[in-house]
Amino acid sequence: MQADIITIGDEILIGQIVDTNSAFLGKELTKIGVEVRQIHTISDKKECIIKALQSAQNKVDLVVLTGGLGPTKDDITKHTFCDYFEDTLVFNQEVMTHIETLFKKYVKAPVNDLNRGQAMLPASCRILFNHHGTAMGMWMKKEQTVFVSLPGVPFEMKYLVNEYVVPMVKAEFAPPALVNKTMMTYGLGESIIAEKIESWETNLPSHIKLAYLPNLGRVRLRLSAKGSSESLLLKEIDQLFKALYPLIGDNITGFESEDPIELQIGGMLIKNGWKLATAESCTGGSLAALFTQHAGASAYFNGSVVSYATDAKKEILQVSDEIIKEYSVVSEPVALAMAKGVLNQTGADVAVATTGNLGPTKGDSGAEIGTVVIAVITPEKELVQTFCFGKHRVRNLQKALNKSLELLYFEML
Amino acid sequence: MQADIITIGDEILIGQIVDTNSAFLGKELTKIGVEVRQIHTISDKKECIIKALQSAQNKVDLVVLTGGLGPTKDDITKHTFCDYFEDTLVFNQEVMTHIETLFKKYVKAPVNDLNRGQAMLPASCRILFNHHGTAMGMWMKKEQTVFVSLPGVPFEMKYLVNEYVVPMVKAEFAPPALVNKTMMTYGLGESIIAEKIESWETNLPSHIKLAYLPNLGRVRLRLSAKGSSESLLLKEIDQLFKALYPLIGDNITGFESEDPIELQIGGMLIKNGWKLATAESCTGGSLAALFTQHAGASAYFNGSVVSYATDAKKEILQVSDEIIKEYSVVSEPVALAMAKGVLNQTGADVAVATTGNLGPTKGDSGAEIGTVVIAVITPEKELVQTFCFGKHRVRNLQKALNKSLELLYFEML
Repeated sequence: MQADIITIGDEILIGQIVDTNSAFLGKELTKIGVEVRQIHTISDKKECIIKALQSAQNKVDLVVLTGGLGPTKDDITKHTFCDYFEDTLVFNQEVMTHIETLFKKYVKAPVNDLNRGQAMLPASCRILFNHHGTAMGMWMKKEQTVFVSLPGVPFEMKYLVNEYVVPMVKAEFAPPALVNKTMMTYGLGESIIAEKIESWETNLPSHIKLAYLPNLGRVRLRLSAKGSSESLLLKEIDQLFKALYPLIGDNITGFESEDPIELQIGGMLIKNGWKLATAESCTGGSLAALFTQHAGASAYFNGSVVSYATDAKKEILQVSDEIIKEYSVVSEPVALAMAKGVLNQTGADVAVATTGNLGPTKGDSGAEIGTVVIAVITPEKELVQTFCFGKHRVRNLQKALNKSLELLYFEML
Repeated sequence: MQADIITIGDEILIGQIVDTNSAFLGKELTKIGVEVRQIHTISDKKECIIKALQSAQNKVDLVVLTGGLGPTKDDITKHTFCDYFEDTLVFNQEVMTHIETLFKKYVKAPVNDLNRGQAMLPASCRILFNHHGTAMGMWMKKEQTVFVSLPGVPFEMKYLVNEYVVPMVKAEFAPPALVNKTMMTYGLGESIIAEKIESWETNLPSHIKLAYLPNLGRVRLRLSAKGSSESLLLKEIDQLFKALYPLIGDNITGFESEDPIELQIGGMLIKNGWKLATAESCTGGSLAALFTQHAGASAYFNGSVVSYATDAKKEILQVSDEIIKEYSVVSEPVALAMAKGVLNQTGADVAVATTGNLGPTKGDSGAEIGTVVIAVITPEKELVQTFCFGKHRVRNLQKALNKSLELLYFEML
């Protein structure tokens, strides 16, 4: 079965916000075997919405819309929906009571007319009850197509998708199996890989599709398969991937997992009973932020020292003046000393330290732009390496993070 | 003039990556007065691309496509382009020489057939020379519409937009003025604001449009205007915004600026000759990362201590056992002590400290989920406040960051 995603809002068209909603929807729909045909981002004008609905009508089984359900005048999705379905709005007491409760609790003000309007819903719609906001989701069918309208606030949208849309789509459509699996490779460009696996690629069965996803030093290879049995497709994909090892085995580091690599490292730390600390110069706290964004990080993350200024390296991390003078702040001895310093300061068992110059200008050290030194210390090993990434600050930061996580991961294997 | 954006790639449809390219394109096109009619994300299948090109043909003046220009077999935009324009590919020696140089420098391998194919380009296209990659941009015209095809790698795409697309669009179309300006408000829900400004909103002239953009404790109000003179439109918008002060003045904190708030704070620090340090418990390094992501942060950012474990608070930040025992780790005295500790450790002049429990479970402190204490110390003032944000970790982190930046900003005004 096929679906279209329609996101409504000028703030997306003018680039004021990045549309993360459709990525979430694409992922969740794909997971349950729905093929997303296209994503359509349109202006919040009535004629644009009507046209988008018409262009999906009977072309796909399902259309999921987000946005334009707020209480204010610029939010017109609900009225447009009503016109499109030749339906009328009716008052819903249950929704009204819920809105009053929300207002009492959070707004501490009486419900005004605009919010009272949120309790008016199309007579024929199945209401997807939004317990986290005043805009209800709506499920309506016209001819061969189901249209689902959801609020644009990501948090509320996600709640409604998980709570209602996913189970209702499964029940209504029993979609076929759709399997995606992605292999991670490091160290070869996409064209080199393509050359090495050419005959393998040419012989892929027609229901399985390959995509190359290159990004800053790694290329991901995604196989996508469609069929009737998820387990059979997965088996087939696994066999195909297996055949890649004789061709590019040295560059394969595994498969893209549901868990990001910092959570995998967290799991390894817990298994060993170890705690992690970071000493960050050029990564400026981004490594610590990566770990601590996840719930439960306190089980394996002790803390971090961000020594952005050279003085902070000396004072907090107790890196000696001599080492800095002899080798400069961007050097392997300093990176190791930083790692040791943060272990002392935090009582952690594993440390990763970064020092470098991301650009765009040379800093205290005089090191070439793009030079990054990373040290990793575990109770069993010690490693320090120097990298030359490139000229571009934002990319250099991302590369330094990727490389730090990679070294940490492989050192703990 | 109107434009469509078409992004090509199954990785977007299945939610494997978030489409940030179209947000960038939307922003840049809007800036030069191009109205983006819609964004269309489609599968990298030939028939889908052709259909999308046809549906934009003569409906808009400009179509910008991204993606599908890589050297591998799954990249089919260029061949599809050729078919659509009934053109043929011809070899370009200048592009070939550039590819050979790139390979020599970065890949350290001879150019293979796939990359040699990157030097084959449609005979009638204007080449947008990509100095940062092997995929050239292409500018082609058919009847009333210009089609521009760009690589999907964000870094290369941005380069080509700034270097070629923006100046070429200006020269070719002389687009009308399009002005967007956004006012920031804190502390009122969107429906309350809408009620207070109802008659103002009703009387907006027809060429000026209002949008409400609510997000975690703040509502942004965006006015968009189209006309012939940018300066006149801006004047008109400013007068309209001015009329809002008598209605909701207490909740207006200014206008959305081109610079994010951390850069504005950086400017204030430089002006005062002060240095900043952060002591982060619940924000886990994210504040430091926000500041250090920007080039030039070393002029005002000294460092940070991320004391995620309670022990790290005691050891590195020298927060005394007594204070922690008497008040618990999530308390105003501890937040202040952390701020003082990091000032001592780093020699900075201004500190912000965070301690709290973001959830989903209660931590060391026993503090309610969502409790966050933030302390700010400047050479002139000292401030500490306790907040109760809510139940949801990701939102709580974002709220703690927003609030820390807000306090820092207002304390330094």
